[in-house]
Amino acid sequence: MKRICLFPGTFDPITLGHTDIIDRSLDLFDEIVVGVGVNSAKTPMFPLEQRMQWIREIYSNQPKVKVISYEGLTVKTCQEISARFILRGIRSIGDFEYEKSIADVNRMMDAEIETIFLSCSPHYSTLASSLVRDVLRYGGDASKLLPDTIIRQIKP
Amino acid sequence: MKRICLFPGTFDPITLGHTDIIDRSLDLFDEIVVGVGVNSAKTPMFPLEQRMQWIREIYSNQPKVKVISYEGLTVKTCQEISARFILRGIRSIGDFEYEKSIADVNRMMDAEIETIFLSCSPHYSTLASSLVRDVLRYGGDASKLLPDTIIRQIKP
Amino acid sequence: MKRICLFPGTFDPITLGHTDIIDRSLDLFDEIVVGVGVNSAKTPMFPLEQRMQWIREIYSNQPKVKVISYEGLTVKTCQEISARFILRGIRSIGDFEYEKSIADVNRMMDAEIETIFLSCSPHYSTLASSLVRDVLRYGGDASKLLPDTIIRQIKP
Amino acid sequence: MKRICLFPGTFDPITLGHTDIIDRSLDLFDEIVVGVGVNSAKTPMFPLEQRMQWIREIYSNQPKVKVISYEGLTVKTCQEISARFILRGIRSIGDFEYEKSIADVNRMMDAEIETIFLSCSPHYSTLASSLVRDVLRYGGDASKLLPDTIIRQIKP
Amino acid sequence: MKRICLFPGTFDPITLGHTDIIDRSLDLFDEIVVGVGVNSAKTPMFPLEQRMQWIREIYSNQPKVKVISYEGLTVKTCQEISARFILRGIRSIGDFEYEKSIADVNRMMDAEIETIFLSCSPHYSTLASSLVRDVLRYGGDASKLLPDTIIRQIKP
Amino acid sequence: MKRICLFPGTFDPITLGHTDIIDRSLDLFDEIVVGVGVNSAKTPMFPLEQRMQWIREIYSNQPKVKVISYEGLTVKTCQEISARFILRGIRSIGDFEYEKSIADVNRMMDAEIETIFLSCSPHYSTLASSLVRDVLRYGGDASKLLPDTIIRQIKP
Repeated sequence: MKRICLFPGTFDPITLGHTDIIDRSLDLFDEIVVGVGVNSAKTPMFPLEQRMQWIREIYSNQPKVKVISYEGLTVKTCQEISARFILRGIRSIGDFEYEKSIADVNRMMDAEIETIFLSCSPHYSTLASSLVRDVLRYGGDASKLLPDTIIRQIKP
Repeated sequence: MKRICLFPGTFDPITLGHTDIIDRSLDLFDEIVVGVGVNSAKTPMFPLEQRMQWIREIYSNQPKVKVISYEGLTVKTCQEISARFILRGIRSIGDFEYEKSIADVNRMMDAEIETIFLSCSPHYSTLASSLVRDVLRYGGDASKLLPDTIIRQIKP
Repeated sequence: MKRICLFPGTFDPITLGHTDIIDRSLDLFDEIVVGVGVNSAKTPMFPLEQRMQWIREIYSNQPKVKVISYEGLTVKTCQEISARFILRGIRSIGDFEYEKSIADVNRMMDAEIETIFLSCSPHYSTLASSLVRDVLRYGGDASKLLPDTIIRQIKP
Repeated sequence: MKRICLFPGTFDPITLGHTDIIDRSLDLFDEIVVGVGVNSAKTPMFPLEQRMQWIREIYSNQPKVKVISYEGLTVKTCQEISARFILRGIRSIGDFEYEKSIADVNRMMDAEIETIFLSCSPHYSTLASSLVRDVLRYGGDASKLLPDTIIRQIKP
Repeated sequence: MKRICLFPGTFDPITLGHTDIIDRSLDLFDEIVVGVGVNSAKTPMFPLEQRMQWIREIYSNQPKVKVISYEGLTVKTCQEISARFILRGIRSIGDFEYEKSIADVNRMMDAEIETIFLSCSPHYSTLASSLVRDVLRYGGDASKLLPDTIIRQIKP
Repeated sequence: MKRICLFPGTFDPITLGHTDIIDRSLDLFDEIVVGVGVNSAKTPMFPLEQRMQWIREIYSNQPKVKVISYEGLTVKTCQEISARFILRGIRSIGDFEYEKSIADVNRMMDAEIETIFLSCSPHYSTLASSLVRDVLRYGGDASKLLPDTIIRQIKP
C-alpha cells in the first residue's frame, strides 16, 4: 500500500513554516498531496492559480510532492485521492485545540483516515500566514518568513 | 426557591454535545430554559423558529426544559425569567477561557447570578456547531453529530 | 431528591479561594459536604484534624455545610454519602485540563455522578494552596489569602 | 538613552484593564506612547478622535503619557517615534499565544525592538473591549469596566 | 528504507489510550518498537518485566510491534535501533506543550529524527496512567481503562 | 530612581534561554540582579557556588549584571535590594499560567513590585533546565543548549 497524505491549507501564501513541515515529512510518506483549499466565503490575498504555482515551483525537483485544489470536506478529498493520512503542522496550543477538533470530526466521518501532526520548528513556530500577509500589505521585510521563490517574484 | 437556569446559545443547530449537557444537568435544576440567542450581526444557517422548534421536539416529554429566544445581555434575560444560574458546557481550553471572561463580566453586572460549568463528555468534546455546519453544507454524514430528530428532517 | 454535593480537596489550609466557591454554590445545593482528602504519600503542612476544625469554625452558622475526611476514590465517597454531584472550583486553564481528566475517569466509573465546575472570582483566581503555604513558611503577610479565623489562630 | 515604549491597541474604548497596565508601567519607562491603531477593515464603535481624546483626558496630568494614531506595521511606528519597547498587557493564555506570535514576527523584522509584557491585575484579567462594547450596546452597567471620565460622557 | 518508529513511555501499565495510538499508526510504519523506559528515580507500580510482557501478549499476533526496555536519552535509543521516527500520542494541551519541548530538544541533538504526533481518540483523551493507577490502588473498576489481557490478570 | 530588577531562578545550570532573556533586557534596566534561589527541599545538579560562578564569568564584562543567592520570599529579596521589578522569561503557556499566579500573589504582598515578562526567542522557547540536565546526565550533546563557558568546563 502506498502511503499517501493530504496536506490541506489555504497557502495564502505558502510560508517557510509550511515548507518546513513538508520537508520534514518527505521520508514518512510515499506521496504528499498539497491541497490548496478554495473557500468561497473568504477573499484570498493571492489568486488560487498563483498559490498553486508557487508550491509547484518550490517542489519542482521533488516528485513526491503534488499540488491540487479542493473544495468541501477534507475527508472526501482524501477518499478521492486515496489518501489514508492528513498531515498538519502544529505551531501552538491554540492550533492544537482547533486541529484536534477537526481531526475528531474527520474520524467520525471516516474512521480509516488518520491525522498526523508534526510540531513546527521553533524558528517557525509563530509564523501564521495572516501575520505574513500583514507584513506584505504594509511593505515590511518578509525575507525570513517566505521561500526565496516567492520573495523574488513579489519584490517590486 | 426554584432553581432555574438559563442555557444560552445559538443552537444553529442544537447538537448531541448540547443535548448531552442538558440531559446531564436535569437533576441539578428545577427548570432549564434553553435561550436561543438572536444576533443581528450574524446570519444563521437555520432560521430562529426552526432552531427553537427542534429543541421543543427533542424535549417534548421533558417538562423541565423550556425554550425561549432572547437578544441582548444574558444577565438581563436571567433577571426577566428569575434564573439564578447560567449553564454552560465546556469542550476545551479555548472554550473555558472565553466562557470565564463572560462569566466574570456577568458577575460584575449582577453578583447574584452564578455560571455553572459542565465539561462535555469526551465523545462530544470537540463537537463545535461550526464544524457540524461545514459537514451539512458539503453533504457529509452528520448522524453521529446531531439528534435523530434533526437528522430525519434535514435528510433530502 | 436532596441535592448533595461533595467538595473534595486537601484544604491545607482552606483559602479564600475555597470559601468563595462554597459560598457561591450554597444556593445550588441542599447540602455541601467538604471532603478533606487523606493522602498517605504527601505530608501536609497542617494536621487533618486542624484542617477540618478550621472549616467547621468558618461554617459554624451554615447548617448546609458539613465536613468529612476521606481516603481513596472520590466516586466511592460520593456513593457512601449519597452525593450525586462533585463540586470543583477552576482557577486556570491548567486546573481545567486536570479537573476534566478526573471528571471523565469518575464518569467512566459511575455515570450517575456529575462534576459541577464554578470558575473562581478573578480576585482569587491564582490563589493556589501551595503558594499560600510558601507565604506562611517564610513569614509573609497572608491576610488577603486566608479566612480571618485562620489568620487569627496562626499569628504568633 | 530615553526609554520610550509604544502601547499599541484599538482602545475602542480604553478600559480599566488598559489604564491598569499603563499606570503600573509608568515607573519602568520615561515615555509611554499610546498608539491608537487605525484598521480600515474594521468599523470601530467610537470614532478615532473620540478614542484619542478620552486617553488624553485621563492622562492630562501625567506628562509621560502621549497619544498618537497609527496605521500599518507596529515596528515601523516604533522606529518613527524612537521607541525601543512595545508594551502589552496579557489577560489570558489565549492572549499570550497571540501576543507571542506578533512579538516574534516583530523581532524578525527589527531585532532591536523588545516586547515587554505585564500581566493584568486579576480584577481586570477578563476585561476584553469586545465584551465591554456588548455591555454598552445593550444598556448594561459598565461602571466597573470603564474609567469615570468615559462613564460620565457616555451616560444619557 | 524501512520506516521504524520508537513509541517510548513508562507503560505502568499500558492503557487503552496507548493501544489506541499503536493500532492507529500500524499502517504508517513498517515497525513500531514500544520502548519501555527505565527510570531509576521513580518506583513503578508494576515491575519492568511484567509491563513488557503485557505489551507482548497484547500484540502477539502483530509482527510489526516489538518491545524493548531502554534507559537514557530517547534519541540514542532511536539511533541504536535505526528508528527515524518517535511516535507520541497527545491527549491534551498540557501534554502537547511538554511533548513539543522534548521534540525540540531531541531535534537539536539529532536533526534526522522526527517526532510524529497522533491525537488520542476522544474516548481515551483523558486516560492518564497515573489516574488508572489510582483506580487500581483503591479497587475501582478499570475495565473501560485497560486492555482485557491486563484486567483478567490483575483480577483477584 | 535607579531601575533595579531581580531575575530569580534556580539556574541549575544557567542556559542559553536564560542568557537570552538577560541580554535582551539590559537596555530596560539600570541593574539586573540574578538571584540564584536556594531551595532546601530540592537537591540541585550543580552546587550553589558553581551556579553563581558561571553566571559571574558569563557577565564578567557587563557591570549591570550582579549575582546573589537568596532563600525565602522573592518580594522580601526585592525589598532588601531595592528592586522594584521582577524579570521573568516566558517560554510557554504552562509557564505563563504559573508565573502569573506567582506575580499575582507577589502583588498582593507588595503592590509596589511589578513583574515584567519577556517572551523567549523561538529558538530557546522550549529549553527547560530539567531537559538540559537530562541531556547532561546521559551524555548527550548540550552545545546548542548551554553557554560556551559552561560547555568548556563540564567537558571531560
